[in-house]
Amino acid sequence: MSTGQVRRAPRSDGVRTRAAILRASAELATVDGLEGLTIGELARHIGMSKSGLYAHFGSKEELQLATIETARQVFDEQVIASALAAEPGRAALVAITDAYLEHLRARVFPGGCFFAGAVLEMGSRPGRVRDAVVTFQRDLAGLLQGFVQAGVDAGELPPSDLASLSFEINGQFLAASASFTLTGEPAVLDLVAMVVRRRLGLAS
Amino acid sequence: MSTGQVRRAPRSDGVRTRAAILRASAELATVDGLEGLTIGELARHIGMSKSGLYAHFGSKEELQLATIETARQVFDEQVIASALAAEPGRAALVAITDAYLEHLRARVFPGGCFFAGAVLEMGSRPGRVRDAVVTFQRDLAGLLQGFVQAGVDAGELPPSDLASLSFEINGQFLAASASFTLTGEPAVLDLVAMVVRRRLGLAS
Repeated sequence: MSTGQVRRAPRSDGVRTRAAILRASAELATVDGLEGLTIGELARHIGMSKSGLYAHFGSKEELQLATIETARQVFDEQVIASALAAEPGRAALVAITDAYLEHLRARVFPGGCFFAGAVLEMGSRPGRVRDAVVTFQRDLAGLLQGFVQAGVDAGELPPSDLASLSFEINGQFLAASASFTLTGEPAVLDLVAMVVRRRLGLAS
Repeated sequence: MSTGQVRRAPRSDGVRTRAAILRASAELATVDGLEGLTIGELARHIGMSKSGLYAHFGSKEELQLATIETARQVFDEQVIASALAAEPGRAALVAITDAYLEHLRARVFPGGCFFAGAVLEMGSRPGRVRDAVVTFQRDLAGLLQGFVQAGVDAGELPPSDLASLSFEINGQFLAASASFTLTGEPAVLDLVAMVVRRRLGLAS
């Protein structure tokens, strides 16, 4: 690309750059943690100057928040979208489980699920970054609970599942991410797919 | 304490100091992460000189490994011991679950379960620290699996539980730690106690 082209499209280029930076930042955060995500460390990782990154984000906290937003978009596209495309109820719970496990299997992030790591890391560190992670977790729990409610309403699931099923499935997601990242064994993902189906009464 | 007393009991004093440092270090690691556990940060946290800490540990990695060993002793005393005191099988699975939930409820570590955080944090960071976390996780999984096997042998659990029950319970532990640390709601712990009992056929 010539310098002239760069000059003619500064905004579009800036947008692409910001998106690429944040994607790299999300990947780095799943290995080094959100707290390990300093502007200096990210600059070294992507071969950019610290001053250039400061121009984009201004502070470590802004970088962390923008990174969470990017990870959330990835999660929405790769996991949530499949669930929303399915019939609410049991089918949606199976769809979100399978999409989540595919997201892990594809190693979209080197350190497993971005939010599984973030929840465990940020739980005890009050502030805006933790709040953003809590919001993600609350929204995901709410979505799962809505699917359970739909399943109960449709007579697919017993009313007693309203108390804990969404929490249980969320727990299996955490376990899948932790165990697959630790062992690299795809069998872990197959196991969780089976566990969730059996819990939903869809397998013996 | 006079200087004379310190001189008369250097070894015992050193042992106490090392134990106290490592306990503080384990607490700090549940908030800042194992990677956040630098000798400099710990020195600031406990008001000790960096050179004094270097004399104890020599490197960040040695400090991390000694901290994991301390956290493991705490886990053995507070969680594993209760399980080993119960009848192998379903009773032991209930005992380890209740002891784990009590360990969280008592907020022994400010950031929840030391190992839940460590597994998520270190999964993608190869090295001796990760290996120590993997060893803990493997031992815990093996212990749980042994209880499941005993339960199957005693006819308390169906043979199909050999495939996944220990993994499922481990996942509920992770979920309990993540959710309780994030929300501070004791109801989360009661929920997990109920989920595990129901999974074991001990509650409706």
